[in-house]
Amino acid sequence: MDEHRELCMRQLLGLVREAGIRPFGYVADDPAKYFAVVEAVGSVDMSLGIKMGVQYSLWGGSVLNLGTKKHRDKYYEGIDNLEYTGCFAMTELHHGSNVQGLQTVATFDPITDEFIIDTPNDGAIKWWIGNAAVHGKFATVFAKLMMPTHDAKGVSDMGVHAFIVPIRDLKTHQTLPGIEIHDCGHKVGLNGVDNGALRFRSVRIPRDNLLNRFGDVSRDGKYSSPLPSINKRFAATLGELVGGRVGLASSSVGVLKIAATIAIRYSLLRHQFGPANQPEVSILDYQSHQHKLMPMLASTYAFHFCTLYLVEKYSEMKKSHDEEVVGDVHALSAGLKAYVTSYTAKSLSICRESCGGHGYAAVNRFGSLRNDHDIFQTFEGDNTVLLQQVAGDLLKQYQQKFKGGTLAVTWNYLRESMNSYLSQPNPVTARWQSEEHLRDPNFQLDAFRYRTSRLLQSVAVRLRKHSKNLGSFGAWNRCLNHLLTLAESHIESVILAKFIESVQSCPDPSTRAALKLVCDLYALDRIWNDKGTYRNVDYVAPNKAKAIHKLTEYLSFQVRNVAKELVDAFDLPDEVTRAPIGMQSTAEAYSQYTQYVGF
Amino acid sequence: MDEHRELCMRQLLGLVREAGIRPFGYVADDPAKYFAVVEAVGSVDMSLGIKMGVQYSLWGGSVLNLGTKKHRDKYYEGIDNLEYTGCFAMTELHHGSNVQGLQTVATFDPITDEFIIDTPNDGAIKWWIGNAAVHGKFATVFAKLMMPTHDAKGVSDMGVHAFIVPIRDLKTHQTLPGIEIHDCGHKVGLNGVDNGALRFRSVRIPRDNLLNRFGDVSRDGKYSSPLPSINKRFAATLGELVGGRVGLASSSVGVLKIAATIAIRYSLLRHQFGPANQPEVSILDYQSHQHKLMPMLASTYAFHFCTLYLVEKYSEMKKSHDEEVVGDVHALSAGLKAYVTSYTAKSLSICRESCGGHGYAAVNRFGSLRNDHDIFQTFEGDNTVLLQQVAGDLLKQYQQKFKGGTLAVTWNYLRESMNSYLSQPNPVTARWQSEEHLRDPNFQLDAFRYRTSRLLQSVAVRLRKHSKNLGSFGAWNRCLNHLLTLAESHIESVILAKFIESVQSCPDPSTRAALKLVCDLYALDRIWNDKGTYRNVDYVAPNKAKAIHKLTEYLSFQVRNVAKELVDAFDLPDEVTRAPIGMQSTAEAYSQYTQYVGF
Repeated sequence: MDEHRELCMRQLLGLVREAGIRPFGYVADDPAKYFAVVEAVGSVDMSLGIKMGVQYSLWGGSVLNLGTKKHRDKYYEGIDNLEYTGCFAMTELHHGSNVQGLQTVATFDPITDEFIIDTPNDGAIKWWIGNAAVHGKFATVFAKLMMPTHDAKGVSDMGVHAFIVPIRDLKTHQTLPGIEIHDCGHKVGLNGVDNGALRFRSVRIPRDNLLNRFGDVSRDGKYSSPLPSINKRFAATLGELVGGRVGLASSSVGVLKIAATIAIRYSLLRHQFGPANQPEVSILDYQSHQHKLMPMLASTYAFHFCTLYLVEKYSEMKKSHDEEVVGDVHALSAGLKAYVTSYTAKSLSICRESCGGHGYAAVNRFGSLRNDHDIFQTFEGDNTVLLQQVAGDLLKQYQQKFKGGTLAVTWNYLRESMNSYLSQPNPVTARWQSEEHLRDPNFQLDAFRYRTSRLLQSVAVRLRKHSKNLGSFGAWNRCLNHLLTLAESHIESVILAKFIESVQSCPDPSTRAALKLVCDLYALDRIWNDKGTYRNVDYVAPNKAKAIHKLTEYLSFQVRNVAKELVDAFDLPDEVTRAPIGMQSTAEAYSQYTQYVGF
Repeated sequence: MDEHRELCMRQLLGLVREAGIRPFGYVADDPAKYFAVVEAVGSVDMSLGIKMGVQYSLWGGSVLNLGTKKHRDKYYEGIDNLEYTGCFAMTELHHGSNVQGLQTVATFDPITDEFIIDTPNDGAIKWWIGNAAVHGKFATVFAKLMMPTHDAKGVSDMGVHAFIVPIRDLKTHQTLPGIEIHDCGHKVGLNGVDNGALRFRSVRIPRDNLLNRFGDVSRDGKYSSPLPSINKRFAATLGELVGGRVGLASSSVGVLKIAATIAIRYSLLRHQFGPANQPEVSILDYQSHQHKLMPMLASTYAFHFCTLYLVEKYSEMKKSHDEEVVGDVHALSAGLKAYVTSYTAKSLSICRESCGGHGYAAVNRFGSLRNDHDIFQTFEGDNTVLLQQVAGDLLKQYQQKFKGGTLAVTWNYLRESMNSYLSQPNPVTARWQSEEHLRDPNFQLDAFRYRTSRLLQSVAVRLRKHSKNLGSFGAWNRCLNHLLTLAESHIESVILAKFIESVQSCPDPSTRAALKLVCDLYALDRIWNDKGTYRNVDYVAPNKAKAIHKLTEYLSFQVRNVAKELVDAFDLPDEVTRAPIGMQSTAEAYSQYTQYVGF
């Protein structure tokens, strides 16, 4: 662990100071390039990718996005060149998802013109803070801002704000007075990142260290904000952190590409059993193996296109600050981060298992990929919590629709679809089962959107019903599984729509044909997986369900025939995949592996 | 890794020589006790459990079960007291599942009365051999027995046999001449077990080292066997190794118990969000969290009872050698090992994720449990291959039924059910949806068995149809997903039946009521998960499907209310679970955790 942490720090310094890669400039001005750098770096070692993300996106990003010009002037250069290494101290021992429940306090002292940062109890210890255990000099600390008042309480809680707190001496690297740092120790993965726990005991920082874009305190102790309420300020503050989710979604697709590449190449190489008196067959020729890996490959392509779209939208948002785009990016980044990272996490286990014993050799990477990636489901927003944000947003849109309001771009489809979907499914098309029909993007999109619209409409009715007796929190909880299904269904609808667009705009006919195959597999596999829902409302008749299953198996077989080309197209060099069993030239795989072991 | 390996060896020596635990005696005479010891030891460190299993069940078991009296006389004591540490050298680089495809050869030399063991090519290097890299003195080597002939070929292949090959000097521990051993290196988990790769170059062993229970060679080079064909001998040889699967199934349930205990205790302890102006609620009060963990807890109980039954059957088989019991144990151990280990593997990821960031601290165990357990899905028979054995067995039984033959005990239910299930589902009962009906074990069992019978009947028809054009291998492959679903469905039927029996025979009324709740949740959750199948054949009407879903959510909520007691009943001491967040006394959990980190 210690060596890995030092290696990551040295690699980061090497990238920035020797190779001249300057990620901070990209954070500020070219997010698409920043996400590409993080994905590439994370492909080699995810610890390094996360270490970079902590420095530039979390610590650096908080200074850029929550601070003002004075902060940029003072810190930009140091963050950029790694003299000012820093942390992002939001999570506490007792509070992760519920950021508004954080208990660390920052009390303004009008006499000295300082804030006093305090950890009031053990539950408020800042926990899991990346870069804190060893390397960080600064921390952006999230704390409730307490302003002195003249009433009996003595202070007034202004809500969670962010403060720059120096934690180690710039020269000696000694921990500063009043600050206690412990090492969070070994983690399941990402052990190249030094996570620490921080306790503050009356740590005084100058008033200027408040990141004051959304709320400020003047010399005479007056609080001011461009935003009218604690909730609006809180939303604005967290809203600026959405870039982390965009980065995680796109890095997660990067991990999925690596794993799928290794698993598919090995499954082509590996032969086991076969017809009597004939050579053994490649294990990817087994229907069960195609079932494990081909829909996964299709999903990888689907996610690739959708995360590209998200990155593009995010870049547009950072330039235009257009309100509709902001809403769109918030919901899509939450949903896609949750959906993609959950899918990748499951897939990493399937990849390992599909490569049998050789998949269990550490050198073949599935273990470290899974262990490192695992926490993608939790950090930057727990997936279950993020999906609820998506569901909440959909319900808001649904209500606005009835009030004649506009819909954000991502759920544009609901505008036209809600009315038609509220009626019964068409009993004639429910029986159509030709290959042409099933591979028609209109049918596929309609199926995805029908489900979303129906789930949305029915959960809205249920919420209204239950809230009478249970209150809004109780009603939400009573419908929670339903709401999560709705959110996933919506995200799948968006993913499919973007995939179909990407296929249609592909200029090369033979590539387009291959992508169409992959897209059809993605769509039909998802429909088949949710056959219960479709059957329950007679959206598909029994024989149509069977036809979808049969075609899905056939498409898996067809995609298998171009699987090598499809993973080669990810263009991952052997130095990045590194797994001996996943070499580009499968002829060398076994010999690489025996050599690795010492033969 | 090196330290962990030495620690496991020292711990094993301590257990056997100091604590006086003698697992080998249990392997020979009291398998139920052996499996209990392995599960308990594996709960503390799975590497130690597997190290013990390699020594006593694999190496020791092969000597006991494939050898004869002369082997027992010569090796028993040394294996028992760990002077004769050993390995089980079956798997090769190119062949794992296809054991009949092994390429290592053992050629009889009638002049010297020896066998000559050879690794003919790199693909035949023995790979992943536990205990080989560091500690083993002997290996049971599986190789094709080649007998000299007088025809042009010069040798005749008698099929795979097992041979005792000394690999290291008993005194100096030096690797013996002609043997090349390399370290397989870091694995995803189980790094306390020293897996190695072995190559043999004309290694000569005495004729007596053939484990000759199922096939022998006389001094004058005559081959003899109590069994008539290569296939029968092969089946008998592998059949003796079935104990490993029984042990893995029961250890896997042990792992699931630990993980479920930690996840559920923490989910009770952890509070996050809540109704406005009220205290935060326990995360296990969220419907989504109940959905993640309560059916898992129900499955843990279900697997517990079924693996107990399997262990009992296995013990009976070792005593009686009754042919019907043998068949039963073979199929059930294959199926249960595959089903349970796949389920546990998925659950370990869900447990980690459901504990959020604190689940990612290595000290809280999910990482090591998952990494260690992962390979349970592969070793002692790849799960996908094992499920095919179950499906194959079911088809054999199905054909025998039509020939008027008898059925093995495990699929007894098929005898009565096949006829009724071949007709259409009853349109009246398909609409019943009262809680009483849905919680009736007869309905639940009927649903599980209906599905199995239907899958069996339909796959038999499909196989017959496809085999005309594709041959038997091609037809099997064309129906492979269907066959795997059939096997899983059968295993679930057996699990449910055993669970229902266990509930009904529970003497204490209030415990019985709690178990009934858990059993109903297990049954209905499985039916709901496969609603597509049930709806597609109108076994349940749409409203009944909804009623099942609603009741499943309600049962999850009810099980949540006794979840603490249900995990406490696993009776795992804190020294075994060890995770600070999973302490029996949840009051201490956070403080254990902060102390662990150094506060």
